[in-house]
Amino acid sequence: MANNDTIVALATATGNGAIAVIRLSGAEAITIANQVFKGKDLTKQPSHTIHFGTIRDGDDILDEVLVSLFVAPHSYTGEQVVEISTHNSRYIIERIIQLLIRHGARAAQPGEFTLRAFLNGRMDLSQAEAVADLIASTSAASHQVAMQQMRGGFSNILKQLREQLIQFASLIELELDFSEEDVEFANRGQLSALVVEINSIIQKLIGSFEQGNVLKNGVPVVIAGRPNVGKSTLLNTLLNEERAIVSDIAGTTRDTIEDEINIDGVMFRFIDTAGIRDTRDVIEAKGVARTREKMRQARLIIYLADPQQDDRAEIESQVAEVAQLNVPFVVVVNKVDLLKQDQVDTLLAIEPLFISAKNKVGVEELKHELLRKVNLHNLDMDDVLVTNIRHVEALRKTEDALQRVLQGIDNAVTSDFLAMDIRQALHHLGEITGQVSTDDLLDNIFSKFCIGK
Amino acid sequence: MANNDTIVALATATGNGAIAVIRLSGAEAITIANQVFKGKDLTKQPSHTIHFGTIRDGDDILDEVLVSLFVAPHSYTGEQVVEISTHNSRYIIERIIQLLIRHGARAAQPGEFTLRAFLNGRMDLSQAEAVADLIASTSAASHQVAMQQMRGGFSNILKQLREQLIQFASLIELELDFSEEDVEFANRGQLSALVVEINSIIQKLIGSFEQGNVLKNGVPVVIAGRPNVGKSTLLNTLLNEERAIVSDIAGTTRDTIEDEINIDGVMFRFIDTAGIRDTRDVIEAKGVARTREKMRQARLIIYLADPQQDDRAEIESQVAEVAQLNVPFVVVVNKVDLLKQDQVDTLLAIEPLFISAKNKVGVEELKHELLRKVNLHNLDMDDVLVTNIRHVEALRKTEDALQRVLQGIDNAVTSDFLAMDIRQALHHLGEITGQVSTDDLLDNIFSKFCIGK
Repeated sequence: MANNDTIVALATATGNGAIAVIRLSGAEAITIANQVFKGKDLTKQPSHTIHFGTIRDGDDILDEVLVSLFVAPHSYTGEQVVEISTHNSRYIIERIIQLLIRHGARAAQPGEFTLRAFLNGRMDLSQAEAVADLIASTSAASHQVAMQQMRGGFSNILKQLREQLIQFASLIELELDFSEEDVEFANRGQLSALVVEINSIIQKLIGSFEQGNVLKNGVPVVIAGRPNVGKSTLLNTLLNEERAIVSDIAGTTRDTIEDEINIDGVMFRFIDTAGIRDTRDVIEAKGVARTREKMRQARLIIYLADPQQDDRAEIESQVAEVAQLNVPFVVVVNKVDLLKQDQVDTLLAIEPLFISAKNKVGVEELKHELLRKVNLHNLDMDDVLVTNIRHVEALRKTEDALQRVLQGIDNAVTSDFLAMDIRQALHHLGEITGQVSTDDLLDNIFSKFCIGK
Repeated sequence: MANNDTIVALATATGNGAIAVIRLSGAEAITIANQVFKGKDLTKQPSHTIHFGTIRDGDDILDEVLVSLFVAPHSYTGEQVVEISTHNSRYIIERIIQLLIRHGARAAQPGEFTLRAFLNGRMDLSQAEAVADLIASTSAASHQVAMQQMRGGFSNILKQLREQLIQFASLIELELDFSEEDVEFANRGQLSALVVEINSIIQKLIGSFEQGNVLKNGVPVVIAGRPNVGKSTLLNTLLNEERAIVSDIAGTTRDTIEDEINIDGVMFRFIDTAGIRDTRDVIEAKGVARTREKMRQARLIIYLADPQQDDRAEIESQVAEVAQLNVPFVVVVNKVDLLKQDQVDTLLAIEPLFISAKNKVGVEELKHELLRKVNLHNLDMDDVLVTNIRHVEALRKTEDALQRVLQGIDNAVTSDFLAMDIRQALHHLGEITGQVSTDDLLDNIFSKFCIGK
């Protein structure tokens, strides 16, 4: 796996833009670049310097470029790295990559630069995974958890846990060498206390996944309600405001992602179901099962009612049905501008938010309520949240192994059984950071990266 | 116009990619970057160096970045320039640009970096225009003419012409100072010879526009022929081969441009007309006018015939009609695999190419024939071609002014009239390179650039 042949890929996005960056990494990165570069002798320049010149294919000048040099190990991958900044013409990019391949480079696989960074010890596996999360982050919250993870916050906790376990494991394994003498180097009481402590940290990490996952992938929300209460108007009102905000900065126009809004840095993701926008009903027979299922899976339900259609008793019975789903929900009464004061007074009993989706009345209050309902405690930069299902699974297996250690201590099993379970726990912790990894696992992780990363 | 306030923009394309580059230029570029960068003190680092660190908004770490420094005047714009290489997350990019704007930068207009390069004398106007052409280039030929122009090939010729004219203009203007003494500092015979020489160069440049334009924008081709002769199969065969070639290099997947193929570095652009793929006929009454018009505008016609449908006499009469359009054409007989030898022999008289579009027989020969027919003489790197309609118009006006100079000399007009026409000629030459420019002209040119360039 640990090749250091030289790989090449476009590192920037394709499309309209002024410049593009082509990245080379590997033992021959600088010498290959030097063969096609006319300017200073790149092999004689210090690391972290930039050089102007031309890339030539024989007599053909392919482009005027800036070449950035990173001499091993002071680079992203830990290898020799060259970044060539070119004009952003797909023709030029293709020609230069082809040229570099002719001179001995190889087209990089998805994620191969980051894989090399991992293999060369520049980052552990959970940090490498966070790089992809960081690039995919679309909100302050998802950005923050990815940044925290990339910078090693999660890794440091795991490292401490591992070190403590390894220390005890080595004492236990020492006992094996002296197994005929019936000594106990590892104090069973201390071991037990340690495992309990470690397990409580692991359980906390597992428990953080719900919040971490929501921050990373957005809070799934369903807008429910009878036909014509204004569900799609409300959704559009929420979405349109967001669009106006994000299109402020010229040149960074984001790909339009339908049905996501960012409220104070938290992404809310509206689940598209046949049941949401087109449903004829929540209460009536047909389609109820499917809509209910979607509502049950949501993290939050906005229940929208229209007192022009339904009287208070009916709305109350609808709300009672929603409440049975055991999902946090907000009752919202739409078309407030059409309500008489006595209608408003009557409805106060069910404690709704009054809005007019069409006239954008009460929308800010609704947003605050959504934030309040999902009840994400405020994060600070030191909070570590688990956001990756792979990590949660490994943590659960670690927890299981540690439970077996505790049972073993209780049952006074022999050292070799304890040693086996501790090694199991270490194995699963190691899977997260990559001390333990298989080619299949690495393939699976890095093949989801983009090429050039 | 010549502000040096600090501008900021994303310089790379948006979309999927590993890294993005945010570019700052202006008097405060380095100090602004330094305010948000945690790492070395950027204001104390030498030009053309790269620094690892983090971009922070207060306590928020927005990203781990590489910052490249270019100290004025050694930069693209001639100003202080900073390039921040970030993870390619739209969230991170937006946050960093907003942060830099809060610290005193301003969002750049389209082309504003290159405009500054022009205003600061780093390149002339025709070179600046070539930057946009270079980015847009999609073939070896269009790339080559843009590269030639960007590297100053065209500018150098114009500079020489201007210098020669300026020398004579100053002699003529000297005569004005002595106008009462009836002296001639500028020898009229020499002036006349010079103007003739300059004009021949200008005419050659004007004459190069047809080829330059075709190389830049592609050769417009119409595939004509009766219904069901296989026109769209042929087009697809040509296009599909191209697609297979360009999708070879992972990571540089080009935006699919329908109806363009690259043959040996020359782009052929198939003109989409109702008349091409759907036309019921070329010969029959209805729709003929429109199809004929499109064929007349083409640089090349592929006339496709099917001897299963039409006998030799009919095909000959169709070809005779095409010949009347005075556009180069290639007669192609399709479905050669279905032909009997005697049919082939009969058709030899009209010297067609035999192909099977469906079975990809004879397609390479057709491509060679297309190249041969457009008869582009081989370019070498020193050939200067005019590719810009603005330049051609300015050259034509220069030519007119010089013709008036020649007439003036013939008619022995006074120095002041000659001086006026020579100044006119200089004015129009200066428009190309930007010695003469107006804000409107600059706006018009640079507003077509992308933001970040």
